[in-house]
Amino acid sequence: MKIGVLVLSDRASSGEYEDISGKAIIQTMDEYISTPKSYDYRVIPDDRDKIEKELIDMSENCSLILTTGGTGPAPRDVTPEATQSVCEKMLPGFGELMRQKSLRYAPTAILSRQTAGIRGKTLIINLPGKPKSIKECLSAVFEAVPYCLDLIGAPYIETNADIIKAYRPAK
Amino acid sequence: MKIGVLVLSDRASSGEYEDISGKAIIQTMDEYISTPKSYDYRVIPDDRDKIEKELIDMSENCSLILTTGGTGPAPRDVTPEATQSVCEKMLPGFGELMRQKSLRYAPTAILSRQTAGIRGKTLIINLPGKPKSIKECLSAVFEAVPYCLDLIGAPYIETNADIIKAYRPAK
Amino acid sequence: MKIGVLVLSDRASSGEYEDISGKAIIQTMDEYISTPKSYDYRVIPDDRDKIEKELIDMSENCSLILTTGGTGPAPRDVTPEATQSVCEKMLPGFGELMRQKSLRYAPTAILSRQTAGIRGKTLIINLPGKPKSIKECLSAVFEAVPYCLDLIGAPYIETNADIIKAYRPAK
Repeated sequence: MKIGVLVLSDRASSGEYEDISGKAIIQTMDEYISTPKSYDYRVIPDDRDKIEKELIDMSENCSLILTTGGTGPAPRDVTPEATQSVCEKMLPGFGELMRQKSLRYAPTAILSRQTAGIRGKTLIINLPGKPKSIKECLSAVFEAVPYCLDLIGAPYIETNADIIKAYRPAK
Repeated sequence: MKIGVLVLSDRASSGEYEDISGKAIIQTMDEYISTPKSYDYRVIPDDRDKIEKELIDMSENCSLILTTGGTGPAPRDVTPEATQSVCEKMLPGFGELMRQKSLRYAPTAILSRQTAGIRGKTLIINLPGKPKSIKECLSAVFEAVPYCLDLIGAPYIETNADIIKAYRPAK
Repeated sequence: MKIGVLVLSDRASSGEYEDISGKAIIQTMDEYISTPKSYDYRVIPDDRDKIEKELIDMSENCSLILTTGGTGPAPRDVTPEATQSVCEKMLPGFGELMRQKSLRYAPTAILSRQTAGIRGKTLIINLPGKPKSIKECLSAVFEAVPYCLDLIGAPYIETNADIIKAYRPAK
């Protein structure tokens, strides 16, 4: 299975600083997923048209796309809008649960607009920009990801059950 | 009051198996509501145009429509989209609370996209497809349903208070 | 900083009774915010076009607009729709958290459709109509408001930390 990691950051894409958020996602996926996987890792600026174009392109080959950055209320934060416009259906439960978990650490979690959606056979999940929050959010929702991939016709994946346990309901 | 029960299932509508979800809804409504009621019960496939047509048709006579099925992330799951397109206003609190309650039982509750909305004098609520989850979700939200019906100009209903207590705020 | 207080009420705007909700908002802001502020206070009927017009007009001068009323399921309740149509981006976390807090007091909290969004350099937050619920909702979300204003380019504000503590994450 190919996992898309899309870093949205004006500064990281211009080389002003090195991306650490996308790398934190890859590290977490390496820990979580036990079945074979490869990555399509890209760093681009917070430009809505570019984000949509990359999401469309990556969804050709990736079964799961994890974005980081661009989910706040600032003018340049447009990741959720770009995600929504390339998806056929949205999964509001992801954003609700990620905000709920992040609220344990910071009341500003309500400013995060992250969401998730389905484009064809690809699940797209918006993650926050900060490495610490990325792991909080992934651990909140990832148990449901393998079954979601099953339902949309993506490859079957397994997790390292001692770290995170994939949940698949009994038929 | 007439209650619409709309079962969305390719397999139940083709006769491949017998619907039990719609029947579970009727049984629960019989237990919950003490005032006179009748049902308009229909079983149709997961086809967005058909769902919209049935919702529009049922809302002519039904004050409350409960759907079951078609709320997941799979390609054939289109109930929330159909519901949204026939409603003038959406009530996101229903989906939020139903997912929150279902999360106690399964982390895959975040995959459920169910929602609720108002079409004229009709309240439409999406319920999940599994009988067990239907009852969990109805018990989570039903206390607020009688007052919601009051506000939209639907008939006044009462509940069996020993099972579920209708909540109407003091003026 | 100028704060817009927009009261949506057919009856208060016609003089049938005196507004107390908008006044409760002003009183709460006086308690919460320690930096200089002034108010733009308006009372208008539940008319979607009028609400949009006022929100657009007030956002010229106000960095924060707090609405009260019109968030329920009744036919005349159109504040969330008006808010959404004048905002470039929505912040679903506000509505989620306000409903969650209100659920502690009344199961009918799920009927509230209140939300928040950004129009240019203005944060717009829908509050419920009842004075008691207004304070519940403001106390639930206000810790995140000063940082949100920072992010959208609005003036810097400080709060009375003994009443409510503004949260600004470390860089």
